[in-house]
Amino acid sequence: MHCDRLWTRARLATMAPGDDAQPMGIVEDGMIAASDGVIVYAGPAKDAPRFEAGETIDCAGRWITPGLIDCHTHLVFGGNRSREFEMRLAGASYEEIARAGGGIVSTMEATRAASEDELVAGALPRLDALIGEGLTTIEVKSGYGLDLASEIAQLRAARRLARKRDVRVVTTFLGAHALPPEFAGDADGYIAHVCEVMLPRIAAEGLADAVDAFCEGIGFSPAQTERVFAAAKQYGLPVKLHAEQLSNLHGAQLAARHGALSADHLEHLDEDGIAAMARSGTVATLLPGAFYFCHETRLPPLGALRAAGVPIALATDCNPGTSPLTSLLLTMNMAATLFRMTVPECLAGVTRHAARALGLHDTLGTLEAGKACDLAIWDVERPADLVYRMGFNPLHARIRSGK
Amino acid sequence: MHCDRLWTRARLATMAPGDDAQPMGIVEDGMIAASDGVIVYAGPAKDAPRFEAGETIDCAGRWITPGLIDCHTHLVFGGNRSREFEMRLAGASYEEIARAGGGIVSTMEATRAASEDELVAGALPRLDALIGEGLTTIEVKSGYGLDLASEIAQLRAARRLARKRDVRVVTTFLGAHALPPEFAGDADGYIAHVCEVMLPRIAAEGLADAVDAFCEGIGFSPAQTERVFAAAKQYGLPVKLHAEQLSNLHGAQLAARHGALSADHLEHLDEDGIAAMARSGTVATLLPGAFYFCHETRLPPLGALRAAGVPIALATDCNPGTSPLTSLLLTMNMAATLFRMTVPECLAGVTRHAARALGLHDTLGTLEAGKACDLAIWDVERPADLVYRMGFNPLHARIRSGK
Ligand SMILES: [Zn+2]
Ligand SMILES: [Zn+2]
Repeated sequence: MHCDRLWTRARLATMAPGDDAQPMGIVEDGMIAASDGVIVYAGPAKDAPRFEAGETIDCAGRWITPGLIDCHTHLVFGGNRSREFEMRLAGASYEEIARAGGGIVSTMEATRAASEDELVAGALPRLDALIGEGLTTIEVKSGYGLDLASEIAQLRAARRLARKRDVRVVTTFLGAHALPPEFAGDADGYIAHVCEVMLPRIAAEGLADAVDAFCEGIGFSPAQTERVFAAAKQYGLPVKLHAEQLSNLHGAQLAARHGALSADHLEHLDEDGIAAMARSGTVATLLPGAFYFCHETRLPPLGALRAAGVPIALATDCNPGTSPLTSLLLTMNMAATLFRMTVPECLAGVTRHAARALGLHDTLGTLEAGKACDLAIWDVERPADLVYRMGFNPLHARIRSGK
Repeated sequence: MHCDRLWTRARLATMAPGDDAQPMGIVEDGMIAASDGVIVYAGPAKDAPRFEAGETIDCAGRWITPGLIDCHTHLVFGGNRSREFEMRLAGASYEEIARAGGGIVSTMEATRAASEDELVAGALPRLDALIGEGLTTIEVKSGYGLDLASEIAQLRAARRLARKRDVRVVTTFLGAHALPPEFAGDADGYIAHVCEVMLPRIAAEGLADAVDAFCEGIGFSPAQTERVFAAAKQYGLPVKLHAEQLSNLHGAQLAARHGALSADHLEHLDEDGIAAMARSGTVATLLPGAFYFCHETRLPPLGALRAAGVPIALATDCNPGTSPLTSLLLTMNMAATLFRMTVPECLAGVTRHAARALGLHDTLGTLEAGKACDLAIWDVERPADLVYRMGFNPLHARIRSGK
C-alpha cells in the first residue's frame, strides 16, 4: 500500500476516545502513515498494512501526539499592557491606571489605531511562540476594535496569519466583547449595531467562522447575548460564549439552548448549566491562565463536569489584559496544578476536546485514520512530561497536513 | 580609547543600586563597552568616552539587562518524577506512590545509579532551557546522592556543565538534604558522616563553592544544621540554608549568625529572622516555583523584608519533586503574580540580588564598569515585558564575558 510519508518506531498518544484504562490511546510501538495530508494509518506497527512510503521517518522512540489546538485566543490586538501590569504591582490605583491609559479601552484604542499590517506583525511573535510548542490550529477572536472597520481589520489580520505561517486559523467575531465609548449608556443600541450592521458585513465577507459574546455583569446581559446568537443563526454561524467567569448569569444554559460549540471560563457554572451543556454537547473550555493571572480563587466545577461527561477543553485565552500567555504546555501545567486536572484530561483538552470546541472534531484532534495529519513529535519519556514540566519545550518536530 | 566590543543604540536596565525613582537604572540611549570580558563603560551614550572598538554592535533600541543568574537549583539529578506527578493527579495515595517508587528516595536511587556522564547528559537540556532565556550564571546543589561517591559525582557533573556550555556554574554541597536509608533513625550519625567524611573530601577536591542544609521538621534540626555550618567554616566555605519553608525553626537566625550568603524559601520567616538577616546581610532567596507547584498558601513576608532592606533574590529551585521549573522569566512572573513583587524587584531578584546570594556581587549582577560583561539582549518594549508575559521568550542575544 502506498503512502506519502511514514513515521516509524514512534510511541503514540493517539488521544482517540477510549476506555478509562486507556484515556490517551497509548501505543508503545506505533506507526503513522499519511497521504495527501491525511492520516491513513495510526496504530501499532504490528497491525499496520505493508506500506510503500515516499519518505520514511524513524522516530527513534519519540512520542507523537496530535498537533496542539488553542481553541480560545484574543491573539490579534494593538498595544501592550505591560506598563499597566507594572503600575498595578507598584500599587497604582484603578484611577491612576485609567488616567495613564490602561484597561481594555487602551487596547481598543491601540487596535483601532493599528493598520491591518501592524495587527498581523504584532500577532506573529505570539503565534510563533505557540507554533514553537507544536500548535497546528488556533482560534482567534475579534473584539478589541468594537467598530465595523476595526473588527473587520482584526478578523482579516487573523485570516492573514494562516498565509504567513503554516497553521490553521479559525476566526470568531466577538463584537459583543465590551461596550465602545460611542455607545456609552446604550448597550442595547450597540448590540443592535453588532447584529444589524457589523455581523451582516462580516458574514458577507466570510471573515468569521463563529460568533462569541461576553455575558457578564461587566459585559452584556443574557437578553443581549440572545440577540447576538439569534443574528448568528440567521447567517448560519455557530456560537460560543464567555460565561460564568465572574458571576452566574446562567450563560451556560443560554449557550446550550443555542447549541453552542463551547461555553468558556465557567468558574461560577452551576449544576443546571452543566446538565444543559451535557445535553447539548457543548464543550466546557477552561482558561487556567486567566484564573492564575487574575488571582481567581473560585475553581471551575471539575468534578461535576466530569460526572456529567461534558468534554473539557483548555486554552490560553491569550489576551493583553487577563492572560498574556502564549504556551499550551504551561496552560496544561496550570490546569493540572491549579484545577487538579489529570494528565489525560490536560492532553485531551488541547487536542480532542479543543477540536470539538471548534466544531472540527471530524477532521482534527486525534491520531486516527481519516483525520488531518497534524502531529507534534516530542523528546520526552512519557506524555506526562508535557504537563509536569514548567518552562521547558521538548518539541522535536511539528507536522502540519502531513508536511 | 580602545575596547574589544561596543554595544550602541541600546536601552539599558543596568540594575545598579539606585534610588526609589530609578530602581532599575534605566538608560534610554545607552552604550556598553567591554574589553577582556569586563565592562569598561555602561551608561548614557552622550557621557561615554570616544571608543575605538574592535567590533561595534548596533542594538537598534533593544533592551539590555545583566545576564540572568539562577542562584538556587538542584539541576543535576537522576530519574524523572513525572510518573509520580501523574499518579498524584489521578488520585493515588502517598503509599501507592511510594510503592511505585516515588518521592525523594526515587531520585536518590536514580542519582546513585547514574554515571557522571549520565548526570551531565540529563542536566544539559534543563541548563539549555535556562541559557536560552539569557542565563549566564547558575548555582547547582548536590544532595540527591547522599553518599560520598554520589555526592561527589553530582558536584563533578555540575562542574562539567561549565565546560559543556558557556556558563558560570557555582556549586553547593547539600549533603544535609535528606536522610539516606543507610542512616535511618540516626540523623546525628549521618550529620557526623557529612561533616567528617564527605565534606573534607569534597573540600579537598575543590568541588564545592558553598555548603547548604535543609533545616526543617522533615529535614535536619537547627543543632544538626549548626554542626554542618561549623564544619563548613573549618574548610573556609560560605554557607546558605533551606529555611522556614514548611514551619519556623528559626533557621534564618541560625543562618544569619553564621554569616550565611542566603536563606532560602522563607514562607514561615518571622520578624526576628528578618532582623537577623538584615544585620548579617543575608539574602532572602524566594522560590515561587515551589510555592506554586506545591499549592502553598502561606506567602513569604514581603512587606517586612522590604521594610528591613533585606535583599531579595529569586530562583527556580529547579528540582524533580517540588519545582520542575527551568525558566527564570516564568519565575519572575510567578513572583509578581503570586507574591506581588514589583517589576524592579523581580529583575533585581534574578540579577543583582542573585549575584549577592552567590557572594559574587563584586563581579556580577549589574551593568557597571568593572563587572563581567554578561548581558542579555531582549526584543521587548520595556523591561516589564520580561515579567508580564507568560510562556514567551524574547531573548535576542546572550553575551558571556564579552563574547
Ligand atoms: Zn476570552
Ligand atoms: Zn532547594
